[in-house]
Amino acid sequence: MQADIAEQPAVFARLVDEQADAIAAVAAQIAQWQPRNVIFTARGTSDHAALYAAYLTEIRLGIPVGLASPSAMTLYGARPDLRDTLVVGVSQSGGSPDLHEVLRVAGEQGAHTLAVTNNAASPLARVAELHVDVVAGHEVAVAATKTYTAELLALLMLVESIRGGGTLPAEELAELRKLPEHAATVLADTGAVDLAARYRFADRIVTTGRGYAYPTARETALKLMETSYVAGLAFSGADLLHGPLAMADPDVPVLAVVGGGPAGTSMRDVVGRLGERRADVVVFGPSAVDGAAGWVRTPDVDERYAPLLDILPLQRLALALARHRGENPDAPRGLKKVTATL
Amino acid sequence: MQADIAEQPAVFARLVDEQADAIAAVAAQIAQWQPRNVIFTARGTSDHAALYAAYLTEIRLGIPVGLASPSAMTLYGARPDLRDTLVVGVSQSGGSPDLHEVLRVAGEQGAHTLAVTNNAASPLARVAELHVDVVAGHEVAVAATKTYTAELLALLMLVESIRGGGTLPAEELAELRKLPEHAATVLADTGAVDLAARYRFADRIVTTGRGYAYPTARETALKLMETSYVAGLAFSGADLLHGPLAMADPDVPVLAVVGGGPAGTSMRDVVGRLGERRADVVVFGPSAVDGAAGWVRTPDVDERYAPLLDILPLQRLALALARHRGENPDAPRGLKKVTATL
Repeated sequence: MQADIAEQPAVFARLVDEQADAIAAVAAQIAQWQPRNVIFTARGTSDHAALYAAYLTEIRLGIPVGLASPSAMTLYGARPDLRDTLVVGVSQSGGSPDLHEVLRVAGEQGAHTLAVTNNAASPLARVAELHVDVVAGHEVAVAATKTYTAELLALLMLVESIRGGGTLPAEELAELRKLPEHAATVLADTGAVDLAARYRFADRIVTTGRGYAYPTARETALKLMETSYVAGLAFSGADLLHGPLAMADPDVPVLAVVGGGPAGTSMRDVVGRLGERRADVVVFGPSAVDGAAGWVRTPDVDERYAPLLDILPLQRLALALARHRGENPDAPRGLKKVTATL
Repeated sequence: MQADIAEQPAVFARLVDEQADAIAAVAAQIAQWQPRNVIFTARGTSDHAALYAAYLTEIRLGIPVGLASPSAMTLYGARPDLRDTLVVGVSQSGGSPDLHEVLRVAGEQGAHTLAVTNNAASPLARVAELHVDVVAGHEVAVAATKTYTAELLALLMLVESIRGGGTLPAEELAELRKLPEHAATVLADTGAVDLAARYRFADRIVTTGRGYAYPTARETALKLMETSYVAGLAFSGADLLHGPLAMADPDVPVLAVVGGGPAGTSMRDVVGRLGERRADVVVFGPSAVDGAAGWVRTPDVDERYAPLLDILPLQRLALALARHRGENPDAPRGLKKVTATL
């Protein structure tokens, strides 16, 4: 898992340098189809990448999005009218039978289909009309890290290329070329690793973020569960105030992703409310927040790019916490790399 | 909260007896619009009712659905093309500013809009073109119970009336008329209350279900967090196998909703996997499951109706657990009845 995490700057560089043309070609086809509606389907970590892409699609492309539950089709036989719809399956392995079935049925129901995977020879890549390869290389650990950020970046490149009518705009490409260096800078900082010891005896950790940062909160909670068996509870900053806030007290640690844009501004209020409840809040983002118990600095970039960077110290925190607890993060109990559900 | 819970059979009867015509009229208008796409937007408990309605819309109407995050519009200024789309806001109070803003913008972007609330005079009801009143009456406790099941039933009546072209089919009405008696039977059983003592010292509880039962798992986790401050972790049965399963051990209690239909069949496999990890699983559903530590019986009805009944013993479990812990479930710390976020 440590090796996978460390590879991420190189994976970013490889995607931007080697896959931009292939992704632009996929984008050109999608731009020509002009879908009225995009539906994402995914599980686990890839579902968090899909959630990020859902925000991008709605905000950057102005296309309404859905997140499909496979069970509607696979268990209950739903056959929605999917003309003018693009259905996107996201899966590192491309081997999950339920996503395969969703894309197969979607095609029958009139949808165009796209698979985003780390395996161009996978069943999911083969059943879809289009495929984006996230070229993350073989992932050693069961807990996904580099395939997650590779999915995020590939989906970002795809959306921006669709926005550009089938070409990644030059100014966007220039920003993306900075990501490997940003990632290397973040990974050189040991702040998150140093923090891990204080969570040695935590039985639950709340994670929170809003907008583009909400997938980061979700993915952090899953990493903590997979590697350290701690109860990871992820909430959007807004949903946290609708109920789960009652759970917050001085004994509940909170990891809050507070960006530099509009969602970050909103999150500062949430951190304030958590402070009133004397919760122990550690902030991940470009600026310190008054009243927080700690701060791990991440680069001050557009909130759109932040999910590719903010997750890096949180992955390292999960790994370091697993080690503090004497667990083996490379082989979490009860898990396999490819999960087969229908 | 006890009084709110006990009222649910009466609320079901009132909705079926007094609101069927009003809901059918709303359904007739929607059937005439023939939306190509339905987007739900909601927060907290109402988001779980919206999730149930999303399954119904996809399975029973064959219309693709999305669940909108308000922040895309309210924080990032997303302005998606929503022609041919119905946007549905679900909120017991109808007072949440972010949902109001989503429906207002959706109208500007070409969508038809519907509000489903327990307050016909609320801002959300007024901003939407159509309104469904769930007539649950004043809810005393902060933790929503009767407004949740009233939202479920109103949305079920709406979807089935749209399916009927603007009329609730007679055979469907006959089934719905049985719900008050089913609910009374479930509430007469004290099995869930008797179980509560064994969770007195649990710091986390995992809840799980699939398909129509997944919203029940989500709502149970929220009720446990709101009233007992226990960490409630909800997973679809399929997602549970993608990571969170690692967390399961003999010290983690699991509440599993296992229905009589296709999702229930799939859930039996999930319970088996949890059993291999020696998790402590208590099943809620019409049949006992081998290897489970306990079983609370609920009526053997179509999985479509089960969410209105299965949640009842789980609400009572949350209430009883709060009492065992010496908490006041009517006034959870840090919460208000109407949560204002933008």
